[in-house]
Amino acid sequence: MFDELFSAPDVVAATSEQAWVEAMLEVERALTRAGAGAGLIPDEAAEAILAACRPGLVDAADVWRAAVESATPVIPLVEALRGAVPSEHRQYVHLGATSQDIVDTAMMLVASRAVGHILADLLGCGERIEELGREHADAPQLGRTLLQPARPTTFGAVAGGWSAAVRSAHEGLRRWRPAVQLGCPVGSRVEFGAHGDAVAAQIAAQLGLEAVPAWHTDRTRVVELASALGACAGVLAKIAGDVILLSQAEIAELTFTGGGRSSAMPGKRNPARAVLVVAAAHRAPGLIATLFAAMPQELQRAAGRWQAEWPALADLLRVAGGAAHHARAMLAGLRVDAERMASRT
Amino acid sequence: MFDELFSAPDVVAATSEQAWVEAMLEVERALTRAGAGAGLIPDEAAEAILAACRPGLVDAADVWRAAVESATPVIPLVEALRGAVPSEHRQYVHLGATSQDIVDTAMMLVASRAVGHILADLLGCGERIEELGREHADAPQLGRTLLQPARPTTFGAVAGGWSAAVRSAHEGLRRWRPAVQLGCPVGSRVEFGAHGDAVAAQIAAQLGLEAVPAWHTDRTRVVELASALGACAGVLAKIAGDVILLSQAEIAELTFTGGGRSSAMPGKRNPARAVLVVAAAHRAPGLIATLFAAMPQELQRAAGRWQAEWPALADLLRVAGGAAHHARAMLAGLRVDAERMASRT
Amino acid sequence: MFDELFSAPDVVAATSEQAWVEAMLEVERALTRAGAGAGLIPDEAAEAILAACRPGLVDAADVWRAAVESATPVIPLVEALRGAVPSEHRQYVHLGATSQDIVDTAMMLVASRAVGHILADLLGCGERIEELGREHADAPQLGRTLLQPARPTTFGAVAGGWSAAVRSAHEGLRRWRPAVQLGCPVGSRVEFGAHGDAVAAQIAAQLGLEAVPAWHTDRTRVVELASALGACAGVLAKIAGDVILLSQAEIAELTFTGGGRSSAMPGKRNPARAVLVVAAAHRAPGLIATLFAAMPQELQRAAGRWQAEWPALADLLRVAGGAAHHARAMLAGLRVDAERMASRT
Amino acid sequence: MFDELFSAPDVVAATSEQAWVEAMLEVERALTRAGAGAGLIPDEAAEAILAACRPGLVDAADVWRAAVESATPVIPLVEALRGAVPSEHRQYVHLGATSQDIVDTAMMLVASRAVGHILADLLGCGERIEELGREHADAPQLGRTLLQPARPTTFGAVAGGWSAAVRSAHEGLRRWRPAVQLGCPVGSRVEFGAHGDAVAAQIAAQLGLEAVPAWHTDRTRVVELASALGACAGVLAKIAGDVILLSQAEIAELTFTGGGRSSAMPGKRNPARAVLVVAAAHRAPGLIATLFAAMPQELQRAAGRWQAEWPALADLLRVAGGAAHHARAMLAGLRVDAERMASRT
Repeated sequence: MFDELFSAPDVVAATSEQAWVEAMLEVERALTRAGAGAGLIPDEAAEAILAACRPGLVDAADVWRAAVESATPVIPLVEALRGAVPSEHRQYVHLGATSQDIVDTAMMLVASRAVGHILADLLGCGERIEELGREHADAPQLGRTLLQPARPTTFGAVAGGWSAAVRSAHEGLRRWRPAVQLGCPVGSRVEFGAHGDAVAAQIAAQLGLEAVPAWHTDRTRVVELASALGACAGVLAKIAGDVILLSQAEIAELTFTGGGRSSAMPGKRNPARAVLVVAAAHRAPGLIATLFAAMPQELQRAAGRWQAEWPALADLLRVAGGAAHHARAMLAGLRVDAERMASRT
Repeated sequence: MFDELFSAPDVVAATSEQAWVEAMLEVERALTRAGAGAGLIPDEAAEAILAACRPGLVDAADVWRAAVESATPVIPLVEALRGAVPSEHRQYVHLGATSQDIVDTAMMLVASRAVGHILADLLGCGERIEELGREHADAPQLGRTLLQPARPTTFGAVAGGWSAAVRSAHEGLRRWRPAVQLGCPVGSRVEFGAHGDAVAAQIAAQLGLEAVPAWHTDRTRVVELASALGACAGVLAKIAGDVILLSQAEIAELTFTGGGRSSAMPGKRNPARAVLVVAAAHRAPGLIATLFAAMPQELQRAAGRWQAEWPALADLLRVAGGAAHHARAMLAGLRVDAERMASRT
Repeated sequence: MFDELFSAPDVVAATSEQAWVEAMLEVERALTRAGAGAGLIPDEAAEAILAACRPGLVDAADVWRAAVESATPVIPLVEALRGAVPSEHRQYVHLGATSQDIVDTAMMLVASRAVGHILADLLGCGERIEELGREHADAPQLGRTLLQPARPTTFGAVAGGWSAAVRSAHEGLRRWRPAVQLGCPVGSRVEFGAHGDAVAAQIAAQLGLEAVPAWHTDRTRVVELASALGACAGVLAKIAGDVILLSQAEIAELTFTGGGRSSAMPGKRNPARAVLVVAAAHRAPGLIATLFAAMPQELQRAAGRWQAEWPALADLLRVAGGAAHHARAMLAGLRVDAERMASRT
Repeated sequence: MFDELFSAPDVVAATSEQAWVEAMLEVERALTRAGAGAGLIPDEAAEAILAACRPGLVDAADVWRAAVESATPVIPLVEALRGAVPSEHRQYVHLGATSQDIVDTAMMLVASRAVGHILADLLGCGERIEELGREHADAPQLGRTLLQPARPTTFGAVAGGWSAAVRSAHEGLRRWRPAVQLGCPVGSRVEFGAHGDAVAAQIAAQLGLEAVPAWHTDRTRVVELASALGACAGVLAKIAGDVILLSQAEIAELTFTGGGRSSAMPGKRNPARAVLVVAAAHRAPGLIATLFAAMPQELQRAAGRWQAEWPALADLLRVAGGAAHHARAMLAGLRVDAERMASRT
């Protein structure tokens, strides 16, 4: 909700309901090519399916609405795909796969694209912090602990702390690896006979994902992403919080250009971007808890906890993306008042 | 995200970004009428404002996008409204109010409408449970504790437990009271001089809200709603979980009509609606935590935690609404196999 | 953990593992008396059981350790009790009840005693805030929104906001009602025949609890308490946060006597009590989420979620109690610098 | 709370309030030796401090109780240590360090020891699962998705999924690295002049920790541990949940020896250890959320969020440790009924 305000346009686009549906169609295409490569789908059938399985085949809202009946979007998606393929080839559509293969692999695609945008914004944040830090490397500044004056430090040291945290969050997120999901109905790939691992590897190669064994009910990969996103949000909220505190009128060691206005007080300038960072990041811990709580998934596929991952992860990508996007804008407009800082040490 | 799948159409509509904007316009209208009633706005100006301040004045997505600059949607909204009012009356637009007055009061309107839909679905759930319970009041059923056979009970007793929990959740949600927010910039209503309480009472009366003192940074009312919604979701997830367990093929004491299909196994029937109830409800605790964590709001208005309430509360209304909507459909399709039950006792 | 630091001594005592065991023994006593009253237990047997079932019968740590084998403390507790009763009366020990009856009712006793201490501290907080508010009712103070200067208000208005929030949290907690649990193995009281409701009413009357139908798997009562405790913690963290902000050296509108010292800087004074309030309250949202997530309890007794309530609720009582205890001490030492306030308006 | 029941004895001991105090004393010793090594503390003074700074110097409960006054246990600890050192050497006690250096480094020691125990139990879980998987590698078993019969799989494949998840959780936790904290009052190590990094490296080497720059307000390392612990708990709760479902009387494909008893039904056998795994793991997501929410720590040291980490991390170590401990016992008693499995495929 309110992602125009709290998220980043590129991350919103990359995680939209339309983007998920397009990613599911990509997975069906990769599955078709891999099946053909393994000799399980005749070339002619594969061509017919690939011709039909194109972006725009279905309306995303329709798919999600029709998903209610069976609690999975793959049923209406595959039905639409089968309907668009000549009847003699229909048996090869979605061959061997199960709903979870399509949704989990699509979720990895969606996530890895959104993560790409977030990494770019984190990099931008880091560069701007380092620039500010270099500019005021030795500017003396009062250190404050428990919000009370402590000992002098420098703005260079403060920026160094921010920058190290951003780098560490960036590194953590960059380390995360999206992977193909291919388990077939009960996680065993038995539907592909001896070809299971080859088909999975083929799909992974086409989509730029890691080839790994089926992970239907091992959700470690999901919570690892959640944690990395949460660390980004947390690190950025710390910086935004510092900016808010240091730009209090009574301290005013930091100021910002283009500050937000008030609906009641025309002259007031609010740290609007910093507020948006804090607000976006504030929602991350609850979403992370939701994803960790979804880990204990029953037997070969969960009755509710798996499905709950989709909106929770999409929202978490959006709030982490929003924190990074607004932090970058906040830092771009940040000004250091070194004289004012010096006067307090 | 994915609210077509996990939420209820009426609750989605009632909590949409458009609905929030329309509710904010309603609050501006009520404020204008109250200001005129107190003699603070000339009748002619009030009429001009009311003529301009109509649904559709602004595009909701535009408002939320433009809200980024100042971290509040009220700035672009009031600007649009001022732009639509003859210049001589513009000074009376949004008179005396602050962003938080408009957003908090609109949030109450949005919430109370969504709550109305949820209450109706809860009532529907309760009636259907009572019907099933009456039908099989004395049907012996095995009680199971820690998922192991315990002592016999009756389906009537089981349904009685479900029904009492639904009634208690319904009662808790029905008790919650939406209230007007009017604090002016710093929560004191001083901008309205002696008319503050009268203006607040007037707005409340027009919008069907309780008239209470300003609650800018006392968020008790918000978490009370969150808790009541969470209790609904929790109670419904318990029932859906029982339905899933009792409809396992090996137990099969409950069955359902119109069960969901599988993309891989044509003959399989899944408890799709129960799964959607569990999935929707699973997201409630994290959102509740987010809202409780947003309570410590700084001084006269928070720098992030207040703003984080909007999407968290909208999402919580949606998941509670989805749980109630899907639970009602699940219960409508539920069948009790009393013979099978009897065979196990 | 670290409850000497973050909680309140009286709440720690009231919620200790020993206190839970003593409360379980109280419930067994009440059950015995009620069984005798209903004519289900011979007077002689009841007397023998009551003589044995006294505080100190068992070592609490032993009980919780021995609880591992069956995942319930009631098994070792009842065994110890049976062992202390002449063999001819043993059949009347724990008559008709199940583990959950004893633990849930004991949890209500423990909670209601802890709540009593928390209410007293909230009352103390409210009184001190009102005293400060009266003393400086008209002292002008700068209002700050998004941590930037807004319009002037008064300290009286600020204290009024704090006080209203404390009253509302107090009221919410006072409204909560502990209740007896008596469901027997599968929630139906059938073990007591026609006497079930009378026995439950008798137990309730002895223990000062509400007499209600069995609520084995309707956990609404538990989350209602969790919410009320969370509102207390949230309201107090807001006040503590304001104290921390307003006592920053650059603002210094509030000061405190007896501030905490630093291990590195002898002259530094830290807002130690306010920090403890914030730290204690910070843990409430996660515990609340844990309790809401525990609501969907399977069939007649849950396999894990019910048991998870005990530590989560005990911890939540302790952090809410800690917030209230430290807030009271913080407020006792708070000083208002009205001159300094005036200089900023 | 109730750690005798829900946690593991070795993890409880490793994370006790006493263990934290002993770890803080170890840090003070390492700091003293490092200071002497750098020539900042005369050898005689160092010897005197090391002689005084021994386990048992202080009573842990006293330290935590006395910590209230300043919101840090380091004040009473250092006072006790100074009191035990001849007056001419007292100036060298705690030289250069600040509270956070001692507590954070001690937290790392405590965590790494508890993690060692958890890793051992995870390893034990993995070995037992592999043993069971080998024994019944080709035993046909019905796969179940959304708790409805799907396609056949084998118990070998099921155990393979469990085992891969346990290995992945083990690997994630093993990768986590505890590190020294040395920042001095404002994070800059300036108190040690040119010796800062050498002193930090010395302390790290003595305590077996990584030598890294100060991370006072970059809490990434803490949430990385939280995430790794959460993944362990989640993976084990999935297995325990499967055990509970597959040992339902109507399915009975798994059974367990030494199952828990019921206080009301002598013949009943409950999956007690699996229940304890689920109950312990259920508390992890809320604690993880608490730790992520604690990341935005103000300026050079936080006023509440840092302090909230101590109990939250200790509790998280305990619930993850409890899940691993009870899972190991659950798996030790697990029996596979291959005939019964075969009859369902």
